[in-house]
This record gives sequence, structure tokens and C-alpha cells, in this order.
Amino acid sequence: MTSDFENLLEIGKKASTLNSIHYLLQWDQETYMRPGSEDIRSKQRELLASLTHEEKTSPEIELALSKLIDLTSGEILDDSLDNAKKSALREWRRDFNLNKKLPDSFVKSKAKTISEATSVWAIAKKENNFSLFSPHLEKIVANAREEAKYLGYKEHPYDALLDQYEQGMTSNSLTKLFADLKPFLVDLCKKCANKELNDESFLFGSFSDQRQYEFHQFMLNEMGLDPNYSRLDKTNHPFCIPMHPHDVRLTTHQHSSSLFESISAVLHEGGHALYELALNPKNFGSPLCEAASLGIHESQSRFYETIIGQSHCLWKHFYPTLQKMFPDKLGPISIDTFYQTINAVKPSFIRIHADEVTYILHVILRFEIEMGLLDNEFEVKDIPNIWNQKMQDLLGIVPNTDSEGCLQDVHWSCGLIGYFPTYALGNLYAAQIFATFKKIHPDFEKKISDGNLTFIKEFLNENVHKFGREYTPADLIKKITGKNLATDDYIEYLSSKYSQIRDKKNL
Amino acid sequence: MTSDFENLLEIGKKASTLNSIHYLLQWDQETYMRPGSEDIRSKQRELLASLTHEEKTSPEIELALSKLIDLTSGEILDDSLDNAKKSALREWRRDFNLNKKLPDSFVKSKAKTISEATSVWAIAKKENNFSLFSPHLEKIVANAREEAKYLGYKEHPYDALLDQYEQGMTSNSLTKLFADLKPFLVDLCKKCANKELNDESFLFGSFSDQRQYEFHQFMLNEMGLDPNYSRLDKTNHPFCIPMHPHDVRLTTHQHSSSLFESISAVLHEGGHALYELALNPKNFGSPLCEAASLGIHESQSRFYETIIGQSHCLWKHFYPTLQKMFPDKLGPISIDTFYQTINAVKPSFIRIHADEVTYILHVILRFEIEMGLLDNEFEVKDIPNIWNQKMQDLLGIVPNTDSEGCLQDVHWSCGLIGYFPTYALGNLYAAQIFATFKKIHPDFEKKISDGNLTFIKEFLNENVHKFGREYTPADLIKKITGKNLATDDYIEYLSSKYSQIRDKKNL
Repeated sequence: MTSDFENLLEIGKKASTLNSIHYLLQWDQETYMRPGSEDIRSKQRELLASLTHEEKTSPEIELALSKLIDLTSGEILDDSLDNAKKSALREWRRDFNLNKKLPDSFVKSKAKTISEATSVWAIAKKENNFSLFSPHLEKIVANAREEAKYLGYKEHPYDALLDQYEQGMTSNSLTKLFADLKPFLVDLCKKCANKELNDESFLFGSFSDQRQYEFHQFMLNEMGLDPNYSRLDKTNHPFCIPMHPHDVRLTTHQHSSSLFESISAVLHEGGHALYELALNPKNFGSPLCEAASLGIHESQSRFYETIIGQSHCLWKHFYPTLQKMFPDKLGPISIDTFYQTINAVKPSFIRIHADEVTYILHVILRFEIEMGLLDNEFEVKDIPNIWNQKMQDLLGIVPNTDSEGCLQDVHWSCGLIGYFPTYALGNLYAAQIFATFKKIHPDFEKKISDGNLTFIKEFLNENVHKFGREYTPADLIKKITGKNLATDDYIEYLSSKYSQIRDKKNL
Repeated sequence: MTSDFENLLEIGKKASTLNSIHYLLQWDQETYMRPGSEDIRSKQRELLASLTHEEKTSPEIELALSKLIDLTSGEILDDSLDNAKKSALREWRRDFNLNKKLPDSFVKSKAKTISEATSVWAIAKKENNFSLFSPHLEKIVANAREEAKYLGYKEHPYDALLDQYEQGMTSNSLTKLFADLKPFLVDLCKKCANKELNDESFLFGSFSDQRQYEFHQFMLNEMGLDPNYSRLDKTNHPFCIPMHPHDVRLTTHQHSSSLFESISAVLHEGGHALYELALNPKNFGSPLCEAASLGIHESQSRFYETIIGQSHCLWKHFYPTLQKMFPDKLGPISIDTFYQTINAVKPSFIRIHADEVTYILHVILRFEIEMGLLDNEFEVKDIPNIWNQKMQDLLGIVPNTDSEGCLQDVHWSCGLIGYFPTYALGNLYAAQIFATFKKIHPDFEKKISDGNLTFIKEFLNENVHKFGREYTPADLIKKITGKNLATDDYIEYLSSKYSQIRDKKNL
């Protein structure tokens, strides 16, 4: 006899399967699809998106859910279920209610606004013409206000938007976290930036695509990605597409002229991929086979990209291989020089190229602008000036063009207001998890430099990945680290790392 | 105001779009998907197949169709429509009625039988163990009988099955066509086979994958495939996947040890692709954006693979390029030797490797076995003996194992009974179209050897491709060639080609 829970899971699989197909369409579009196929591809995606939305809000799933949880009060109706299943029900109810709150007409009109805005944004960025994009961004901000109303919130409309990406997080909490971080980062940046900068020319020049690909595969293999379930392809923008724990697609750019950029991207996407690969396929169709939140996801990618990926111990293991692959460029460069160079602090205009010290400042800037817009402190047309003013305040530099300023990111054109903070949260979670990791593995540097990396994956599998959405992000970080999310571990991590680098200690 | 026809087309687009997505899943499965992803992939495909079937038989499409055509009588209800639209309605009604005739329970149980049968077939072929496959094939034959009953037929259950792939064709017509062909082919094979066989070792050995790929791309480019809408990838088995006229995916194997096999495959799949690329995307969603039949489709692939692809004039143009790419192997080989070798007649066990003279004999063998099974002349367990007896009669050779005999093709395990004849029909249509082509382009050999190939594509676009399913296969071949399908042009084509080769004329 099928239990009510199994029945619900079966129904849930339909939406998850449709979603996984949608991901394949996206992957193919970025990797192998020919340029002329864009029209039919967007039709395919529209259709699947609408079918997925239908499945997520179908009377069938409503009925199946209602047998197990009161959709209004959230009371679990079958107390014999285990805690994981109870959590799954709570998350399922949350998704169902969120999806139900947005009227179909709003979802469709938002999709149309976004589709137009992304096209115009690309042109506006190319032509450095913010006024072209401005009316579209106005619509997107208006949509965001409307969406927040539909979704509901206690204190601030921003919270409703943010909550979609990072359950339970609020603008109030963010403001407090950022208030801690901002002076510290601005100060640290001033201390470290451009100090005794190494000649970094060995990271630029001409690097064989094939060899880079081999090195990327080598890294993913060392990280412990299962090639039976994952693959790496080449795209313009790196990403990780999680179709299913048994089908995870990573991509990276291979810049023949910039060696470390692609290495960072592979470590980053590899971190995302390990999360998805470790979710339990038996739970596919339920929230237990989904990551806890975008912030937690980002913590996994940043853990591998920065905390491990820019550590001295990792390169003690990786660098000899990299040197052998690119002897002309790296042969004369010592590992210490390499390590210092990949960790150089340099205020720069583009967020995705930012170093560890300045990265969150870029996010704070976007958060402050988004809040200012929702609070009517200024209007969309004022963004370029505000942006440049904030760049000056936070990073001490001002972009020459809006293309390398407020037009640099695609996110706003995609309707993603309230999304950027998850990039900062990822770094905070990662540092806090790292503090626990160090306690459990005090010899981690030795192990890593000896070339044993799988214990990192095992630690994250066991402490972060395997739970899916069983815990909210706040509960999960407390469960892993024993305390609520805070900035102290991050501040400690950066202070200690950069003081060592400045003093040339422990190299 | 949207017309009833436009409304129907909009609805039809849903099924076509779902179908196109299903094709992408199939393409990805054969090209880039990792082996561990098979489970989720089959779930994705099952779901899409069921959604597509739902769309094709939905009350929505029934209503939209009924406004324009009487679903029972086939009477067109809006006489103001042009002929193409009227044809589209007839074909739409045909599809709708065919889909409605098969009960959901039958469709699902057939899918299950096939899924099991294909897995077992692969093992049985590998282990040369027909008795393993036999019970599954029995189920498939039983399914075929049941399906024929559901679909209905006038004279023979085989006709119901065949009609799904080649509308209007009957076992009676096929028997007559094959009665003409069999003695001719058996005789021609005896005359040509193994006569003064050239040393063909220059076609085998070690060929760089990259150079083969470059030559394949060169061929497709010369044929006139638009790279904006099509791409070539590498798989174990070559195929052409038609998602949409703006997204057509070709694949080929690159046998590093066998040069001409992949060349043939690329020309073959290129022929299929040109058909799909020439369908009018404005008709996407309607039968006018689909190929006329499998036989007509196969005529296009065989036209390029054999009639053009194994012609002396084509290689006059292509051979110097191929020689330059593989100078070690081909440098010492003259074009005449090359031409004679690629056209060598050699009875062999495997259909897909058969030369032009023996190819149809392989198909006749399968047709006779399928008919014998439906007519209860023998049972599934007798197939190996019957197969070997027929091989002896038709080709004068007997396979050593069932793996290279009755287990060689995947088709039966996929439930494809009544499908093989379309492979023979493709050759007949191609030769008959070629006879017309020669009349319109008497200087075709000169043009081709001068390196001008696009007029071939233009001829086929204009005379075959652009109509989609506006005409039935029988009407289409009559429209193109002025006469009904017959064997004389094929017999004339082969007789003339092979007498020239035997006499070493016109080389």
C-alpha cells in the first residue's frame, strides 16, 4: 500500500522532472545549441515553465499535501512521520503557498518584462547607455514591489523578495551584518590593497585550452566529483546546472589569456556540484532533494573557490602539476609568489572578478541601492550617480563607464531584486563552517598539502549537503557550527589570512 | 481576430514543442549525458511522452479540429482554406484518430514491453543468445497484432502497422515491388560480387578524428547545411534529430580505423537534415512542418549517401581534399580505384554496412519474416533458422552467429514491426526522383564535379521538402516524377551504374 507521503512524493516528482528538463534546455542553450535556434528554444522554455508552474500548484498536489499538513496553519496531520518528512512537508507547503500567492497574470507579465529587459540590458551594457535600460528597470522595480505585496511581509517589502532566495533572512538582519562588515572590509582593503604587488604577468598570456581543460578535470577529480554523474563543458559564463543528483552539469570559460580566472570558476562550480551530487536521489521530487538556500549553496562554492581554492596548502598540492602543464609561464615562479599573487587585494569595478576582501563590498553596494529604491530614497534614473558615489566610498575607485558600473550584472534585468545578498551570505556561512571544520580537522592543511582532499567533501556531505531542505538556513548553520550566523568568523578568517600574507608568514 | 486554423496551429504547437524537447533529451542521451544519468533520463522521457500523448489527444485539440474538419467523415468544413491547409487538416485528423485508437493502457504496456525488450536484446546480441530474446520478441509480435486490431485494416494486419510509417502503403503493394526486385538483385549481386576486388586496405587503418571531423564539416558545408541551425556531434550510432527547422542535430561515429563508413553516415544524415531544415517554421505545430513519410525521408538520405555520395562526379570534387587530409593512405590511390572500391559489391551479414546492390535484399528478408510471423507460417523460435535459410537464398552466405544474423538490428526490440520496408522504399523513391532530377539537370555530373552542389539541395527543397505532409507519399512521388512508385528507375539506375563499373567505363 502506498502511503500518503509516498503518494505526495510521486506527484512531486512531476514538477521536479519538468524542472530538470528545463535545466537541460538551459544547459544546452549555453553549451551546444546553434545561435539560430534561439526562437524555438525560448518557446520550449516558456512551455515548460508554464507546465511546471501548473504542476506545482495543481489540485492534485494540493489534495495530496492537505492529507498530511494543514495548508493554512502548517500543522502536521500525521505525527508518526519522521522529522525529515515533517520538514519536507513544511517546505512543500511553503513552496505551494508561495506559488499560489502569485496570480498567473502577474507571473506571465513579469516573464514578459524580464524577457524584454534582458535583451535591452545587453544592448545598453554594450553601448554604455543606462538611459536605454532605465525604463525597463523601472518596470522591474515596480514588479518587485507588486510581488512583495502578493507574497506578504512583516516589516519591509524587501524581506518578501529576499525570503524567496534565503528563507527567514530579513533586510533588518542584513543591515546589521553589513554594518559590522563594512568598516572592517573598507579598512582591511586600505591596509592590503596594492601593497607590494607582485608582477602578475605569469597568470596572463597564452594558455592551451586543452591543457587548461585537463587541469580543470584533474581538480574536479581531486575534489571528488563523480564523473559518472557529472561533466564539465565550456561556456561564456561558468555555471552549475543541477538536474538531479545523478546528472549535474558544470561549465567554465577557458580564457586562453587568463589562467587563474577559469581555475577559480571550476573550483566554484565544483563546490556547487558537490552539493547537488550529495542530495539523496530517493528524495527527488521533495524539498529534501533540494539545497537549503541560495546562500548555503553559495557557501559551498565559495568554500572551494576561496577558503580552500586560494589557500597555500591546496596549491602546495596542485601547483607542481600546474607548473608542469605550463612550464614556460610558471616554471620560474615559486609557489609563494603564486600564492601571494592569486590573493592580491585590488579594488576593481567588476564584482565577479573581486578578491576576497572587496567582494562583499560590491554586494553591500547593490543591497543599499535596492533598499534605497524600495524606500523611495531615490529613483532608477539616479542609479549611475549613486553607484559611482558608493564605489568611491567603499572601494575608493569610480568606474569610467556605466557598463563597468551599474550595468555590469545581468541580475536586475532578470528581475532578481533581493538576490544579491545571498552572495555575501555565502561567504559568511562558508567562513563560519570553516571555523567548525578546522576544529574537527586541525591537521587539514597537512592533509590537503599531502593531496588528500576527499575528507573535505565528506565533511560537507555529512554536515551540510545530505540534509537538503530539512533545516532552514538559520537552523542549518546553527546545527553545523553551534551558533547563529554572525560576522566574527569571517572577520577572523580574513584578518588572519591577510595579516599572514602581509607579514609573509607561514608560506 | 484569430482564425480557427490559427487557433488550431497554436494548440498543435504544444505537442510539437513537447516533442522537440523529447528529441533534445534523446540527442543529449546519445552525445553528452553521463552513463549514470540513465535512470533520471528515462523518467524524463516517460513523462514527456505521456504529456505529448495527452496534448495530441486533448479535448482542446479535438474541439479546435472539429471546427474545421468532420473527425468522422473527414469532410473539410471550411472550404475557403487553401489546399495546403486542407491537407494539413486531413493529416491532423489522421494523427488524432490514430492516437485516439490506441488505449492508454495499451500504450503504457507496450512501452514497458519495449523498455524490457531493448535491454534484453542488447545482452542477447552480446552473448549471441537468441533464446534469451525470444520470449520478449513473442510479446512484441503479440503487441503488434493487438495494435493492428486497434488501428484497423482492410486486408492484412501488416498494413495497419506499415501505414503508421508509410501512409497508404500495403503489404500487397510491397510484395509486388519486392517480387520485381528480388530476382534482379540476386542476379546483379551474382554478376558483380567480389569481381576483381580492389585491395581496400587504404580505407582502413588509423585516421585522425580531428581531420575526419573537418572533412565531415566540409562535406556538410558543400551540401548546403546551414550551420546557424544545425550541428554535427559524435555518437556510437549516427542519427539526425529534427527538433525544429531551426534546430537540427546530426551525429556520426568517427571510426579512427574505417574512413568511408563515417563519410557515408555523414552524407546520409546530412540528407535527412536538409529535409528538416527546409520545412517551413511558420507551419511548426502542424503536419505541414513534418516530413511526408519515413520512406520519403529515407529517400533524401539515400540520395545523398548513395546516388550522389557514391558517384564518380562527387568524388572528382571531394577526393583531392580527402587525399590532402590523409596523404599517407590516399596519396597513392587514384580516384578511379577509390570510386570502384567504395562501390564494391560484397554480400555481407550486416544490413547497415551493405552495398547498394545487396541492401534491399536485407530488407526483403526482414519483411518476409515479419509477414510470416503475422501469418502464423512459423513462430518466433524459428527465426534463426529461417533467417539463415533466407540469407543463403538471397545473398549466398550464412552468418556464423545470431548476433550477426537475426539479432543484429535493434528495431524489433523497439516494437518496430512494419518499419523496415521504409528503408527499401527510400531507395526506390530516391532512384525515381533521381530519374527526374537527371532530366531537369542533364549536366548534373559536370556541375557536381566542378564543385557546385547547392543546385541539388535547391531541387530537393523545391520538389520534395517544402511540402511537408501536404501530399501523401504516393501523391508526392507522382507529383515529383509524373508516375506512381515503381521499380524500373531503381533497376535502371543500378544496372547502368554497375555495368559501367564492370566495364570500367566513364571513370
